[in-house]
Amino acid sequence: MSGLEILKDKHIWEIEGFRANGAHTGLKYKRKDFTIICSDTVCEAAAVFTRNKLKAAPLIISKAHLENGRAQAVICNSGNANACTGKQGLLDAKNMAEITAREVGCDPEDVIVLSTGVIGVMLPMDEIERSIVKVASILGKEKGTEAAEGIMTTDKVPKELVVETEIGGKKVRIGAIAKGSGMIHPNMATMLSFIVTDASISHENLLKALRESVDQTYNMISVDGDTSTNDTVAILANGRAGNEPITEGTEEYDKFLEALNLLNGEIAKMIVADGEGATKVFEVEVRNAPTLQDARKMAKAIISSSLVKAAVHGGDPNWGRVMCAAGYAGTDIEISETSMLSLSSNGETILLFEDGMPTGYSEENAKELMSSKFIKFILDLKKGGHSTTAWGCDLSNEYVDINAHYRT
Amino acid sequence: MSGLEILKDKHIWEIEGFRANGAHTGLKYKRKDFTIICSDTVCEAAAVFTRNKLKAAPLIISKAHLENGRAQAVICNSGNANACTGKQGLLDAKNMAEITAREVGCDPEDVIVLSTGVIGVMLPMDEIERSIVKVASILGKEKGTEAAEGIMTTDKVPKELVVETEIGGKKVRIGAIAKGSGMIHPNMATMLSFIVTDASISHENLLKALRESVDQTYNMISVDGDTSTNDTVAILANGRAGNEPITEGTEEYDKFLEALNLLNGEIAKMIVADGEGATKVFEVEVRNAPTLQDARKMAKAIISSSLVKAAVHGGDPNWGRVMCAAGYAGTDIEISETSMLSLSSNGETILLFEDGMPTGYSEENAKELMSSKFIKFILDLKKGGHSTTAWGCDLSNEYVDINAHYRT
Repeated sequence: MSGLEILKDKHIWEIEGFRANGAHTGLKYKRKDFTIICSDTVCEAAAVFTRNKLKAAPLIISKAHLENGRAQAVICNSGNANACTGKQGLLDAKNMAEITAREVGCDPEDVIVLSTGVIGVMLPMDEIERSIVKVASILGKEKGTEAAEGIMTTDKVPKELVVETEIGGKKVRIGAIAKGSGMIHPNMATMLSFIVTDASISHENLLKALRESVDQTYNMISVDGDTSTNDTVAILANGRAGNEPITEGTEEYDKFLEALNLLNGEIAKMIVADGEGATKVFEVEVRNAPTLQDARKMAKAIISSSLVKAAVHGGDPNWGRVMCAAGYAGTDIEISETSMLSLSSNGETILLFEDGMPTGYSEENAKELMSSKFIKFILDLKKGGHSTTAWGCDLSNEYVDINAHYRT
Repeated sequence: MSGLEILKDKHIWEIEGFRANGAHTGLKYKRKDFTIICSDTVCEAAAVFTRNKLKAAPLIISKAHLENGRAQAVICNSGNANACTGKQGLLDAKNMAEITAREVGCDPEDVIVLSTGVIGVMLPMDEIERSIVKVASILGKEKGTEAAEGIMTTDKVPKELVVETEIGGKKVRIGAIAKGSGMIHPNMATMLSFIVTDASISHENLLKALRESVDQTYNMISVDGDTSTNDTVAILANGRAGNEPITEGTEEYDKFLEALNLLNGEIAKMIVADGEGATKVFEVEVRNAPTLQDARKMAKAIISSSLVKAAVHGGDPNWGRVMCAAGYAGTDIEISETSMLSLSSNGETILLFEDGMPTGYSEENAKELMSSKFIKFILDLKKGGHSTTAWGCDLSNEYVDINAHYRT
């Protein structure tokens, strides 16, 4: 037994040595808009950021602050992304770190700063200072999911999860809060996810594990194909679990990665399920591709296709759109007579496509499967040994409604 | 004066030596479902096809038929794409060419076969034979836009246009019928567009001109980011205009290309305007990029962004989404302080972004411009001398409605 499990109803501030709270401070009209995560001691830390060439100001500041591989606090506001804000935006992000450092009592360089919300609007810095003071004052007075709520934008539900595993005879916990909803098509990094752990691990090994995990989890989801300017996944490890420091190539590292993958995979699926306007989640497994990159490209093209997403929404088993998306994914793979496409739901699987043409499946049966809440497509290419899974959500009228008038 | 003009209310069957008609033959419930274009004589011919790795059967047959650079007839059905139909699909497409050849009196190898509609359903070949016989029987009895109607799927309006220019002292006409609407994100080739001309030009020069023109027109539009399995643009030239054969590198070639660009550009915009659920068209001009490829990537990323499309739909001047899409377009261009973004509509232009941050534009004014029927974004990178234009449509609730239940 690996001892790996999801801890129900636990919060990240229940991990030894961490506090994390969120509040409504007036930056947004009604909902919580600020979150601080704070460690009692300086942590080993790592992060991956968006590959969008247009990076928001706080990402540039946070990247610089993380160069020494350590951090003690995370400050994040929602409602304003501090992107496309020029030199003043950089000064504002730096200022946010300094105010936070002053309030929680740490080095400004040990603060990770993030922002999420509308692009192209300057931060109201007077208000921001008051906001940070307010949230810092309630650290240690945590009750529930306030920290996860403070980073939400169009999210409907807070996203928070804690997992526990045993490493070198010690119980180790890893927990995360995240936000998702729109502009979700992570590329190397993703939306916002802040992970804390009491594991003992160097920032080099932490970064390696984080990158590996992100590629298999957050990078395999899409809500709308838009890669954000602010995508960030950051992790802080305070070493309180008392395990021997985890190093790459050991069983302990594998167990840590396994736990991290469980955490990030569950959080990624929560983000898809709460995608803007989403009413359904669907999974795509591409099997037996020549390379892992090919499998990933194909799976992501399918979950990102507007036509596939609309068919999932309507419960229409229009699987030709799945094959079409596989065809334009940008790989060199010929969809040949060996390829097989299946639809799976509620424990039942039906083969739709084989020998280069439709099988004699029952249309009624296919419709029934497609109309269920969770659907899975399996595309078996039989062209190699690499497989992968990706998750998407349906495209609904509500997505259009939310995004036609987001700011107004 | 170049003598180039759009001929109002002209049809492709009014170009000397061509007939083209369409009819309802029962393949679809109510709407016209078959079209034949036929030349009195064998034509020089060329075509470009989808880059989707999954190519529909008729494309494979048509490509083979075009290897000798000539064609005399085009047969196209709507309602069934004959894609994902294996070896039988190839036999069916070949059979369609043979039946057409028999009915119109030409060589089967001189027939271009196309199909459009649902993927993964076998063609009902008994019905197809009756359908072709029916449409062939009304060739020469043309009245209006029947040929353009016969290839429509979810299109709301038929798309047909004829332009005229003067080449070497002779009047030359070029006309096209096209279909668009959904699964529109052409890559090298595009949806279906059949072009006929009375110009005298070899198939080698015809193919060169067609490729050049397609890159600037059809390849610069997107409805939903889905590159179809059946995209095809084909052109037939019968030489009836009596001009000296057009060769590359001459003034005559440039005039022919100019006319072809006018025709294809207008048809491409018609396709976007009739995009599934579209209520608005928007144009994106990327100026002064380091390379033409960079400019194209960026313009296409912006017109393809679900978030930009939704903002256009709602009339929300949320221009940060435009910058965000430019950032993830996959170029190496840093969006720097020299970049400028403007919004233009109804003859008015306002600067939104400059010096790396928002300008002091009036939000009310921006909203007014965004709410008009035709909107243009201009992104000036000031990083080189290459510029391009792309066209997109908005994302509406109707798009979701159409595609959630297309087959049912």
